[in-house]
Amino acid sequence: MLELLDLTQTLQKSEYATAMPELRAELRDLQQAILAAGIPVVVLLEGWDAAGKGDTIGTLVYPLDPRGFKVCTTHAPTEDDRFRPYLYRFWTRMPARGNFAFFDRGWHRRMLEGRIDGELDRQGLMVAAGEIREFERQLTDNGAVLLKFWLQTSKKEQKRRLADIANDRYERWRLQQPDRRKQLSYRRSLQVAEEMLALTSTANAPWTLIAAESRYFRRVDILHKVVAALRHALVARNLPLPVAPNEESPAAEPARLPDAAQVQIPPSSRPTLLDRVDLTRRLERKEYEKQLDPLQRRLQELELECYHQRLPVVVVYEGWDAAGKGGNIKRLTQELDPRGYEVIPIAAPDGTEKSHHYLWRFWRQLPKAGHIAIFDRSWYGRVLVERVEGFAAEPEWRRAYQEINEFERHQTEAGSVLVKFWMHVSPEEQLRRFEERERVPHKRHKITPDDWRNRARWGAYREAVVEMIERTSTSYSPWTIVEAEDKYWGRIKTLQTLVSALEEKLGVAGKK
Amino acid sequence: MLELLDLTQTLQKSEYATAMPELRAELRDLQQAILAAGIPVVVLLEGWDAAGKGDTIGTLVYPLDPRGFKVCTTHAPTEDDRFRPYLYRFWTRMPARGNFAFFDRGWHRRMLEGRIDGELDRQGLMVAAGEIREFERQLTDNGAVLLKFWLQTSKKEQKRRLADIANDRYERWRLQQPDRRKQLSYRRSLQVAEEMLALTSTANAPWTLIAAESRYFRRVDILHKVVAALRHALVARNLPLPVAPNEESPAAEPARLPDAAQVQIPPSSRPTLLDRVDLTRRLERKEYEKQLDPLQRRLQELELECYHQRLPVVVVYEGWDAAGKGGNIKRLTQELDPRGYEVIPIAAPDGTEKSHHYLWRFWRQLPKAGHIAIFDRSWYGRVLVERVEGFAAEPEWRRAYQEINEFERHQTEAGSVLVKFWMHVSPEEQLRRFEERERVPHKRHKITPDDWRNRARWGAYREAVVEMIERTSTSYSPWTIVEAEDKYWGRIKTLQTLVSALEEKLGVAGKK
Repeated sequence: MLELLDLTQTLQKSEYATAMPELRAELRDLQQAILAAGIPVVVLLEGWDAAGKGDTIGTLVYPLDPRGFKVCTTHAPTEDDRFRPYLYRFWTRMPARGNFAFFDRGWHRRMLEGRIDGELDRQGLMVAAGEIREFERQLTDNGAVLLKFWLQTSKKEQKRRLADIANDRYERWRLQQPDRRKQLSYRRSLQVAEEMLALTSTANAPWTLIAAESRYFRRVDILHKVVAALRHALVARNLPLPVAPNEESPAAEPARLPDAAQVQIPPSSRPTLLDRVDLTRRLERKEYEKQLDPLQRRLQELELECYHQRLPVVVVYEGWDAAGKGGNIKRLTQELDPRGYEVIPIAAPDGTEKSHHYLWRFWRQLPKAGHIAIFDRSWYGRVLVERVEGFAAEPEWRRAYQEINEFERHQTEAGSVLVKFWMHVSPEEQLRRFEERERVPHKRHKITPDDWRNRARWGAYREAVVEMIERTSTSYSPWTIVEAEDKYWGRIKTLQTLVSALEEKLGVAGKK
Repeated sequence: MLELLDLTQTLQKSEYATAMPELRAELRDLQQAILAAGIPVVVLLEGWDAAGKGDTIGTLVYPLDPRGFKVCTTHAPTEDDRFRPYLYRFWTRMPARGNFAFFDRGWHRRMLEGRIDGELDRQGLMVAAGEIREFERQLTDNGAVLLKFWLQTSKKEQKRRLADIANDRYERWRLQQPDRRKQLSYRRSLQVAEEMLALTSTANAPWTLIAAESRYFRRVDILHKVVAALRHALVARNLPLPVAPNEESPAAEPARLPDAAQVQIPPSSRPTLLDRVDLTRRLERKEYEKQLDPLQRRLQELELECYHQRLPVVVVYEGWDAAGKGGNIKRLTQELDPRGYEVIPIAAPDGTEKSHHYLWRFWRQLPKAGHIAIFDRSWYGRVLVERVEGFAAEPEWRRAYQEINEFERHQTEAGSVLVKFWMHVSPEEQLRRFEERERVPHKRHKITPDDWRNRARWGAYREAVVEMIERTSTSYSPWTIVEAEDKYWGRIKTLQTLVSALEEKLGVAGKK
């Protein structure tokens, strides 16, 4: 079947530039609908090396809220994996309801590599295929959307790409010996792929073949197909499709509490460090765009350098509701290789988490050396929401300043870099954004009655924030206060801060 | 300080035999009080090789409900551990509230081995000790009980034990090269241990030195100290101590629903496989005791053989409330090396678990090859409680039979052994046990209104059980129905079944 795929399909840059913005906006809105519907989505990218799997994942996650997806790269099994049934490492990485998981290679590798290496005979292949079909049926039967893409390139193109990669200092690390070996027998790899595709293409989880010869064509084609599949999944479940940006949906129930907007924010009783923050700082859009691109690219280079030097990186975002954490994180991660970072949204602890020490769940989520973990809210909840709402008793949150300082030192002593942002806005700007969120359909999911309730306690939160910053800004893990009244300014500042911190720690000179 | 320890302290066998039963009963009752109080308990055993750490853990867990503790063995860090801060693998293994974690070596190893190997200079040692003190204070400040024991033996005794172990075919595997090297410099190891003990003995987490020369003395001494520490922890928190077996506490609120005991169990509408179970089977106590010991010892040997052959073993217990699962599991595990098995109690899923596929949490808990996982209730909840109580929709639980058969095949295809027990009692015997549980103080925690409620739905459960056994008893993972009306019979039958299954799979002949 692969030889029937028209690998000459291509797309002009202008066509690409026209098609992408709308597809991205659609996928962004679909993510919210999928979250609301609680559908787990698994997207698998398969294909031989250099077919563009990583680039495709980058394209797909670009418009997504990074708190709602994870990227899973399938390497050779570790010792731990080998001590458990084959499907263990895939099962345990399945996304929660409403979340996406993108797999760069997956559970079909055994069928591919086992055949190439000659370790799997015909009968072993049948058993492996049977298990995979059962696994996939169990997922889709229980409500998951499973999208499987096979990226195909021609022999000539594959050879050319491998040569390109070998010559690119930022990409060279991706080449390993086995890649070359497989390249040697393109015909055999075609046979093996066809065999696998035929055995695991089922009604509930069919393979979609992608002509990956042209990058523009591949990106648009897959994005288009993912969007169509998600729309189909919502329709098949009798769920509403997201409202198109130009349609106006009937006004939803107002989320705000009665008169919450009129709540008087008490003035600060003493001038604090927050009063000294200059919220008039701003950047014009043009200037913002000029600065954004080189910073994002520099961060991309540094991400790779972190991997090489095995530097663990922890980035913490705290801030007022509607201070722009989500959008800021999105710009921070937009050009990063999604296999090298993870965004970890922190909500209230669940049952298992509550039955442990409050730091336990954060220890479990510390990044592996060489990876970046971005916490959207964090262990500082102990001295913010838990303090203000009374979830922690006073001796508990008072003790937490020291505990947190120690926790962070235990990381930096082990070589980690910690960068912490407090995203600061004025209460007036927050009110403006709350009201905008209620007005604009695709922003409405961002505002809840909790936001209004928290706003009503601005004074108590302000006191907690000041004490937090004063007591947990240490030499090894300082706070950076980000003037986020202007989003452009805030985004550039966080990027600059992170870039500088990494350059310093990695011992690489900044580009002027 | 170690040289001041009187290593000649000893105990006669008769004194040992007198002291142990009462200490065991105390610890058993304290476990329930600790569970009710929600206190996490961490017991750390340290000392040089062959000091008796494993044997001590065996002594401590013997009287405990295996659903309430886990044993953590500290080996050299894995690749995954090395990619994270040093304390990561200890933090992530901390017990939940009300549970015990026993550590066979722990977070002080870095200080010991780093000094022996010369990798840690004086300053590095100070930093490591500081982190450890902080870690321990964070635990105890947040309510954990932390007990640290250092087991000390004389040079002569240590040498003798290492020789014994080398000559014992079941113990020989424990000896590794580094042990011998350390043995070579007993004087240096004393210095290093003293240095570590002095740096990490704090008011909140002091070291207790144990003269480990005499096995009887060591066991009684530690058991006594653990009991005293737990009693102290309860008193310090103003919590009631467990009622001594000979005291009669005032009758607690009756847990049962009004007239629940009078509920009529509807007769089975058709004769089912459950009606054919011969519940008159029984064993006299004498015969039971005669059979128990050799079976437990055989299972102990097989546990080791599983480890050598890297066989993963999964044991599933399902059955009526009060059918004796807990007591049965206790006898099954009583002589096992606690480092080789884990008992996994399954309750209703929590938030994170609910947001995933229902099989996800079981995949996560599958044993590593070479280990035994004993599930006290399991994935069969899908077709039992979830079916009867309506937590799963009919298409969901109907589909689950096939999903479960596949799930189990995915394990056995990877080489696992699966043994599944249905613990069967008559409704009359269940009623008798419920009433006994309400009467006897130290059994009262075992009975809840839920038990009475479930009993009222006996007919619906019976139907679900029959269908479950009929549809999920497969050639590769058959059900064994255990006649549990007589507990002695039930315990011997499960032991025999598991021993036979393991002997067959391991290809070792059974002892006649």
